[in-house]
Amino acid sequence: MNTEDEDRAARVMLSFLAEPGEPALGSLLRCCGPGDVVAAVMSGDEPRATLSAAAAALPGLTRAFKRWRSRLGRLPSAAMQAAWERDGIRLLCPGDAEWPTQLAVLADAQPVVLWLRGSADLRYACLRSVSVVGARAATGYGKHVATEMAAALAERGWAVISGGAYGIDSAAHCGALGAEGITVAVLASGLRYGYPKGHLELFSAIAGQGVLVSEWPPDRGPTRPGFLVRNRLIAALSCGTVVVEAALRSGALSTARHARDLCRPLMAVPGPVTSGQSQGCHEIIREWGAVLVTGARDVIENVSPIGDGLEARRVGPVYPRDNLDPVTAAVLEAVPRRSGSGPASIAVAAGVDLNTVMQCLGELAAAGFVERCTQGWRLRSDA
Amino acid sequence: MNTEDEDRAARVMLSFLAEPGEPALGSLLRCCGPGDVVAAVMSGDEPRATLSAAAAALPGLTRAFKRWRSRLGRLPSAAMQAAWERDGIRLLCPGDAEWPTQLAVLADAQPVVLWLRGSADLRYACLRSVSVVGARAATGYGKHVATEMAAALAERGWAVISGGAYGIDSAAHCGALGAEGITVAVLASGLRYGYPKGHLELFSAIAGQGVLVSEWPPDRGPTRPGFLVRNRLIAALSCGTVVVEAALRSGALSTARHARDLCRPLMAVPGPVTSGQSQGCHEIIREWGAVLVTGARDVIENVSPIGDGLEARRVGPVYPRDNLDPVTAAVLEAVPRRSGSGPASIAVAAGVDLNTVMQCLGELAAAGFVERCTQGWRLRSDA
Repeated sequence: MNTEDEDRAARVMLSFLAEPGEPALGSLLRCCGPGDVVAAVMSGDEPRATLSAAAAALPGLTRAFKRWRSRLGRLPSAAMQAAWERDGIRLLCPGDAEWPTQLAVLADAQPVVLWLRGSADLRYACLRSVSVVGARAATGYGKHVATEMAAALAERGWAVISGGAYGIDSAAHCGALGAEGITVAVLASGLRYGYPKGHLELFSAIAGQGVLVSEWPPDRGPTRPGFLVRNRLIAALSCGTVVVEAALRSGALSTARHARDLCRPLMAVPGPVTSGQSQGCHEIIREWGAVLVTGARDVIENVSPIGDGLEARRVGPVYPRDNLDPVTAAVLEAVPRRSGSGPASIAVAAGVDLNTVMQCLGELAAAGFVERCTQGWRLRSDA
Repeated sequence: MNTEDEDRAARVMLSFLAEPGEPALGSLLRCCGPGDVVAAVMSGDEPRATLSAAAAALPGLTRAFKRWRSRLGRLPSAAMQAAWERDGIRLLCPGDAEWPTQLAVLADAQPVVLWLRGSADLRYACLRSVSVVGARAATGYGKHVATEMAAALAERGWAVISGGAYGIDSAAHCGALGAEGITVAVLASGLRYGYPKGHLELFSAIAGQGVLVSEWPPDRGPTRPGFLVRNRLIAALSCGTVVVEAALRSGALSTARHARDLCRPLMAVPGPVTSGQSQGCHEIIREWGAVLVTGARDVIENVSPIGDGLEARRVGPVYPRDNLDPVTAAVLEAVPRRSGSGPASIAVAAGVDLNTVMQCLGELAAAGFVERCTQGWRLRSDA
């Protein structure tokens, strides 16, 4: 095992010992490696016996260690991990090419790992994405609006991000899938557990065209507080959040609160003032300054501050071409200057597989070298 | 004829010669009396022959005089004026006790006269009033919301102001009438002409409980630009304007624009994003900063900056008691300190007629001496 493999194994263990979003673990991982934390937990000693003085001085550590140690018997076997892999579940760790860079905004509440299932590249999907969230007990109106909005976003090349619930969440995924777009479902249960069970078919469809994401180990069931913890991820992964329908005390408003606190654009769809399921939307427009949006066009205008597409042109490339690794450089060479090519043609031209091309294009777009156009991908004119 | 009667007669003539809202007449009346303007028009001379140098130098005066002179044959006979009076139409001029003081905000676009029909005191009604406006082609949803909102405003002692059209206008009046409140219809035709004809019964009901208002001579029919001119009055008379339903190019948005330009609170009711009749509302919430309101409570909160009722208490009386005329002073004497009395009991106690009591109470409220309460009227605790 090299150091990177050790780090990944340690992160997997920590994802079994700690709950997602625990601030004690988040702060700890900012001053020591995951292997050090696992070693300290397994040693049975006081934190200061094995950790640096700064790390050991973090608040709440003694109690956190007690909690984590109580779960040492629940660590996954190698057979379990092999079974997950057979089910198409892949592990994502910070630093991986597919790790979404915008999660950095979460600071101490960053996920320790992410479990993924599906064909889409998460990082690339998130670069141009909108969270479309709302009530489980949605009305026909709300579901209609969510479906139409997600379809229109997908048609314009924006990925949709939502939870896995009935109502607005599923309407948004269905809209994006129907328009052959990429959709991302962030679940509050493990990916093999899959909650709610009535959506297992929807989850398969999402995995086929988009990607399923969870912070919880694949077999873990959902817990009530887990949904609120998960909501910070939905807000952090996307460029902005739209609430389609929400009653006054709806859980969707917790996602809205995270978007607001993370300074990401927050939007809401109005509805009849006679409908309780629109009250939360009206409330956040009036009280939180959420922007009133009536469709995908308004949404795109809000997540692209100076006009759709223009934003990409505003910032030049951050890294010089010479610093690219050979594979990425080959992909960049294969991207045409004007007309645009699909990923498959680029893969052939660059001599690499499609999955690698998708990853590289995501990185190249993030770095400002390439951009999407109607025919696929092309070089940015200022690159 | 004393000077005041001459002034009134001159204003009536000017209301026949000029169109409401003509800036040339408005500026002229700021530097000379209505009698001087009439004399200058009837003289047939150049404006500078009879008017002061400052007045004669006003822009557009020569063309305005030509227009006004072309209408000299249309002046009303004494018999016509007597007929209007028999129909219960009364003339209101600036300076009259019932003249709504908030019209001063219109500056050069102030009405020359107002024609009124109905039992309510216009000035008093406007002191606590909200304009509820919207599309003629309203949906069932919009009419329902307008009716409920107007009824709830009326129940809390707020007068409703609107136009005379089908759709939102009539729904608002009906709501206020049903709640036994005061409602004000500002028409774009003369009050005897009455437009639209299908609303003559509604207009009678409004006259019975509220008041009908027009700037146009009683027999004048409506003109298309007249509606836009009328809209400035709807915005200026009330403490704030609510748009209930409006398509993107609806005339109701012209009232909204006046409210915004006059710095009066502007509000809009959201609706389904799938409804064209709510598009104008969503537009002004997003683009003009109109406040999203979902019911009468929100509206009252917006027109009473520091809470309903609190605002009245914030400012003490402006004029000392000793400056009041004997009749008004007698009415003030008859207003109880705590429990409140109805206008009829106050009239008996003060020994004046009910109409005079209503006028005096309006003035006393404006001057900060008295306030409304559930039992009628009482002294303000800080007066």
